Amino acid sequence: MKALKHISARLAGAGLMAFGLISTSAFAQDAGASATSAYVDNTYLFLIGGIIVMFMAAGFMCLEAGLVRSKNAAMQSTKNIALFSVAGLMFWLVGYHMVYPTDGFVLGGWLSGSPVPWSHGDVSVSHGKYADASDWFFQMVFVATAASIVSGTVAERVKLIPFLLFTAVLTAFIYPIVAGWQWGEGGALSAMGFSDFAGSTLVHSTGGWAALMGAIIIGPRLGKYVDGKVNPMPGSNIPLAGLGTFILWFGWFGFNGASQLAAGTIEDINSVARIFANTNMAAVGGVLAALTATSLLYKGKVDATMVFNGAIGGLVAITAEPLAPTIGSSVLIGAVGGVLVVLTVPLLDRFKIDDVVGAIPAHLVCGIWGTLAVAFNTQTSFEVEGVEQTRSMLAQFGIQGFGVLATAVFVCLASGLIWYGLKMVTGVRVSDEDQVTGLDKVEIGLEAYPDFKN
Amino acid sequence: MKALKHISARLAGAGLMAFGLISTSAFAQDAGASATSAYVDNTYLFLIGGIIVMFMAAGFMCLEAGLVRSKNAAMQSTKNIALFSVAGLMFWLVGYHMVYPTDGFVLGGWLSGSPVPWSHGDVSVSHGKYADASDWFFQMVFVATAASIVSGTVAERVKLIPFLLFTAVLTAFIYPIVAGWQWGEGGALSAMGFSDFAGSTLVHSTGGWAALMGAIIIGPRLGKYVDGKVNPMPGSNIPLAGLGTFILWFGWFGFNGASQLAAGTIEDINSVARIFANTNMAAVGGVLAALTATSLLYKGKVDATMVFNGAIGGLVAITAEPLAPTIGSSVLIGAVGGVLVVLTVPLLDRFKIDDVVGAIPAHLVCGIWGTLAVAFNTQTSFEVEGVEQTRSMLAQFGIQGFGVLATAVFVCLASGLIWYGLKMVTGVRVSDEDQVTGLDKVEIGLEAYPDFKN
Amino acid sequence: MKALKHISARLAGAGLMAFGLISTSAFAQDAGASATSAYVDNTYLFLIGGIIVMFMAAGFMCLEAGLVRSKNAAMQSTKNIALFSVAGLMFWLVGYHMVYPTDGFVLGGWLSGSPVPWSHGDVSVSHGKYADASDWFFQMVFVATAASIVSGTVAERVKLIPFLLFTAVLTAFIYPIVAGWQWGEGGALSAMGFSDFAGSTLVHSTGGWAALMGAIIIGPRLGKYVDGKVNPMPGSNIPLAGLGTFILWFGWFGFNGASQLAAGTIEDINSVARIFANTNMAAVGGVLAALTATSLLYKGKVDATMVFNGAIGGLVAITAEPLAPTIGSSVLIGAVGGVLVVLTVPLLDRFKIDDVVGAIPAHLVCGIWGTLAVAFNTQTSFEVEGVEQTRSMLAQFGIQGFGVLATAVFVCLASGLIWYGLKMVTGVRVSDEDQVTGLDKVEIGLEAYPDFKN
Repeated sequence: MKALKHISARLAGAGLMAFGLISTSAFAQDAGASATSAYVDNTYLFLIGGIIVMFMAAGFMCLEAGLVRSKNAAMQSTKNIALFSVAGLMFWLVGYHMVYPTDGFVLGGWLSGSPVPWSHGDVSVSHGKYADASDWFFQMVFVATAASIVSGTVAERVKLIPFLLFTAVLTAFIYPIVAGWQWGEGGALSAMGFSDFAGSTLVHSTGGWAALMGAIIIGPRLGKYVDGKVNPMPGSNIPLAGLGTFILWFGWFGFNGASQLAAGTIEDINSVARIFANTNMAAVGGVLAALTATSLLYKGKVDATMVFNGAIGGLVAITAEPLAPTIGSSVLIGAVGGVLVVLTVPLLDRFKIDDVVGAIPAHLVCGIWGTLAVAFNTQTSFEVEGVEQTRSMLAQFGIQGFGVLATAVFVCLASGLIWYGLKMVTGVRVSDEDQVTGLDKVEIGLEAYPDFKN
Repeated sequence: MKALKHISARLAGAGLMAFGLISTSAFAQDAGASATSAYVDNTYLFLIGGIIVMFMAAGFMCLEAGLVRSKNAAMQSTKNIALFSVAGLMFWLVGYHMVYPTDGFVLGGWLSGSPVPWSHGDVSVSHGKYADASDWFFQMVFVATAASIVSGTVAERVKLIPFLLFTAVLTAFIYPIVAGWQWGEGGALSAMGFSDFAGSTLVHSTGGWAALMGAIIIGPRLGKYVDGKVNPMPGSNIPLAGLGTFILWFGWFGFNGASQLAAGTIEDINSVARIFANTNMAAVGGVLAALTATSLLYKGKVDATMVFNGAIGGLVAITAEPLAPTIGSSVLIGAVGGVLVVLTVPLLDRFKIDDVVGAIPAHLVCGIWGTLAVAFNTQTSFEVEGVEQTRSMLAQFGIQGFGVLATAVFVCLASGLIWYGLKMVTGVRVSDEDQVTGLDKVEIGLEAYPDFKN
Repeated sequence: MKALKHISARLAGAGLMAFGLISTSAFAQDAGASATSAYVDNTYLFLIGGIIVMFMAAGFMCLEAGLVRSKNAAMQSTKNIALFSVAGLMFWLVGYHMVYPTDGFVLGGWLSGSPVPWSHGDVSVSHGKYADASDWFFQMVFVATAASIVSGTVAERVKLIPFLLFTAVLTAFIYPIVAGWQWGEGGALSAMGFSDFAGSTLVHSTGGWAALMGAIIIGPRLGKYVDGKVNPMPGSNIPLAGLGTFILWFGWFGFNGASQLAAGTIEDINSVARIFANTNMAAVGGVLAALTATSLLYKGKVDATMVFNGAIGGLVAITAEPLAPTIGSSVLIGAVGGVLVVLTVPLLDRFKIDDVVGAIPAHLVCGIWGTLAVAFNTQTSFEVEGVEQTRSMLAQFGIQGFGVLATAVFVCLASGLIWYGLKMVTGVRVSDEDQVTGLDKVEIGLEAYPDFKN
């Protein structure tokens, strides 16, 4: 439902896989299900999907705390729990109605006209298709995901409070504005026929662009790039990072599956199930591609962090359209994501962009790939004088590309401005001495692993 | 449903937030849903809620194993898995029917008349509103929560087997007796109009009082308080403790949400959704308050363990009434919880009460706060000669306070007696030499992290 | 539904516990539930059950990474995420229709006639009782479980790529062939009256036999058995292993509960609830038995890893029949599993079979026990000339034993052949020098915990 109407298409060029047909018609044979029953089923989808997406915050914490050095791991853990809290607060105060305005959009669909706090409706009456609070809850955990992405990239040298101030703006305004373009009724991108089912661009690339601007403005960690050499700074707890990856994978079933937004009809629950299978197989593709690629590139050694990020890259890539593809296409979309991760990591180092956990390759680059790949699988339809029309794949590519570009321009400008403002006003970067000491002692006042000798 | 009837009220004094209206009437328009469908929906609520509350046991394990020193972390992990097992066994053998007597209460509603084992009903017939085993399962994971609270406080110096014996009594009798006062039909506190939706007092304060008595009777860890000074004994694995916090947060959606006890009507599922949102926002309030408070008190340093306990304190505080408050009130209730955690931790040290993980501030103190705060939001109604009456806020405060007091007196006496008896009979405290060696080697026979030098 | 018809019986010999009656008749009073509603409820069972079984992969990762030495923990984490991916890919390509042939079985029900890839059906129409993709997803996560078992046993000396090649064959052919015997329509064991509800034999013993053959063919870790002495090689992260145990326990509710295969009727959802309670109590029995047994055998010390494996052993034991037993019987079945774990671990050492994490005792031995114990609780019924007949307990024992034996013979032969072939062609064992260095550096190119001194 979220992605409006889907029309299947064939994968141009590749020709290897046939994509399944997705019916465009609403499912009409559902008179048997009572309205209450469907309402409960729909609400359950948001609630169950919502809590496992909420749990992705724990996944990001594990991944990031595992990939920083031990002297910064308590800071990273604290930062992740704090950013989730800031995100929830700001999305309540203003974010939700930036995405879903109560009084419609202004500026031609580019800005909500009503940035007001969200509040509960009356629990004793129906709220339409599902409980209002279940929808708010589900949307809220999405915004936290975008913020978690940034946290990983700028780790090990960002100050806590300025980071949380950035998070506040990101989750109150930047992400909600972008999400509104597509998911708000009357949003500008949605009107154009842009399609991003669960947020490859809206969530993951948005987080990725904000992370990229942060990495550039804050600068690399002390000692990362010296005399033209890249000094590896290996993560301190790889099993924890692996657990984080699996938690993210687990939560992604909610991220994509519950983005169907309904589960009370045969077609909706069938779609949720199809999304589960496809989401899983894109992660599978990402893992196996990253494993194979690193094995080939690194003399038979399989890089653990690349494999973890391969899973995430595959998941991000399928997020823009997890319903239409076949299983085979899902594997392929994820596999391209996995390869992109492996290729992009060294590229960032070449530009001295220090992305501690590899969030930019996984979330930004694979988010762009996934958004463009939608055109292989789905073209949105539109009506001309009452007759349904379908865009050509090329036209859809153009629209997808425009959405990617619009997001890039806006998020880079907005987040660049905020990062730069914070740099000027509060400072965002921990001093060199304090980086040597470690952020745990300096910002948190305790150590992550005080009993273990370094 | 659990908390019977709710009547909304305004927050006295603060005046900042308006609380939403909660209808007191049963939802009548639900003829559309079939009985079977509602039965399934209700049972799903218990089953899904139940497994994520079960997973809170893993959260307690991570939190506690992360906050003890590395030489005691294997003991802590083993203890947490063992206590969950003892709790399940005892709740089956006697606890369940202490809460829900088959033949009603005796002693004026203060004691179950039928402490007998629970057994499965016939699966081929309806058990009323939900499957009997789903209810048993959900109630069972609650008792384990109470036991987990105690485990954290008395860590690093309690002997394993005596601790498990205490757990057996706590989960067979102490907690079930208290829970029966409110949740059993005809329980004494319930009859008075006491209100504790999901157990701020019944679960968390009960665990907290039992923990407090344990801390006093077992005494502080060797070297904790020497010559009037408090020696910090920092936790060995902060990221693990952070993960534990997030797991608890995740599980709390089941703890509070499924305490609605039904999900098969519009009003019930709306209520579950509202509880999810409120529960989350109380944790948000707790985190941000603890973060701000420690930042102000500790010269700009944010204390990670305080932030973790702030989340838990906020969650405990909202547990007594997660349905009636608005989002804003939920944030406020949680925030007060977070501040209470920060203020109570040093207070315990002043009295040389050694609470290793901060469970007493988070579960006991915030449990009391949350129970009293119910009076701001909800007054229970009662009937006089067929006419519905509502208590004044002050009267409700009195009843809430009485429930807190009754729990305090009973749990302190009962658990004090058991701890003292165990001290006399089996001993409960590990010797000084063994504390120096660490409980892992002494009680468990292996080390938590044998490869890492201390 | 999965286990077809159940007929209750009394526990021969023990006489301590009375088993509950399970109705044999289909539940007929369910006209009230709409078909759509039941379809959604059934599909939800697969989806929710499926994701928590998927999360068991994270549990295996934590358990195994925690029980290997720190120099092999990154390898173990990578291996677990890679094997889950390989399993998904192969189960899509061929495994699913090896279990559930599109054109029936050949060779008298011993082999699928149609090893073809699985593909999505049309989402706009009903697929019968539940969404096809939800079924595929649920079955897929089972095959990953079998592969995870092998991973733990052969840890610390197996090469990554050959292990993944073995996994590919295991998940494409070996496990699916065995599972088809019972769960495929017309499978040979099913036709005989063999009963294995959720896979004590089909999943856990299959994984266990494959692990055993791997352990024998690859040989023990360097230095494990020297001059007739067994050198302990303690796990490097016991809290992580404890967390893994709890994650597995959590996931098992999906493993057993969703194996009911339906939740849309009173009887089905009652059954799911009963399975939840029984599954939990078998784990409880396993934990407490292992705790007691090690306490008695090891001079008062409770072995943490035995307690963890006791939980798993109890869970494996109840998996063959989690519905029919009473709570008391479930505790007993699990407790026997816990004792078997404690007794089998030293036995393997006597034969110099090096099982790093104790997977063979927990999954193979307890899987056999659980499968045989079905005869105490359930005899399958059959018809002779239209009249329903029930087997004697002894006859059922025979059939259960035959199923165990058939699985043993086939899996040992097939996996022995594959392990041996890999040994000849690619090599499967890491060299002695590389074992000393650790697999993390050799195979993965980074260390699990680079900051901590060994």
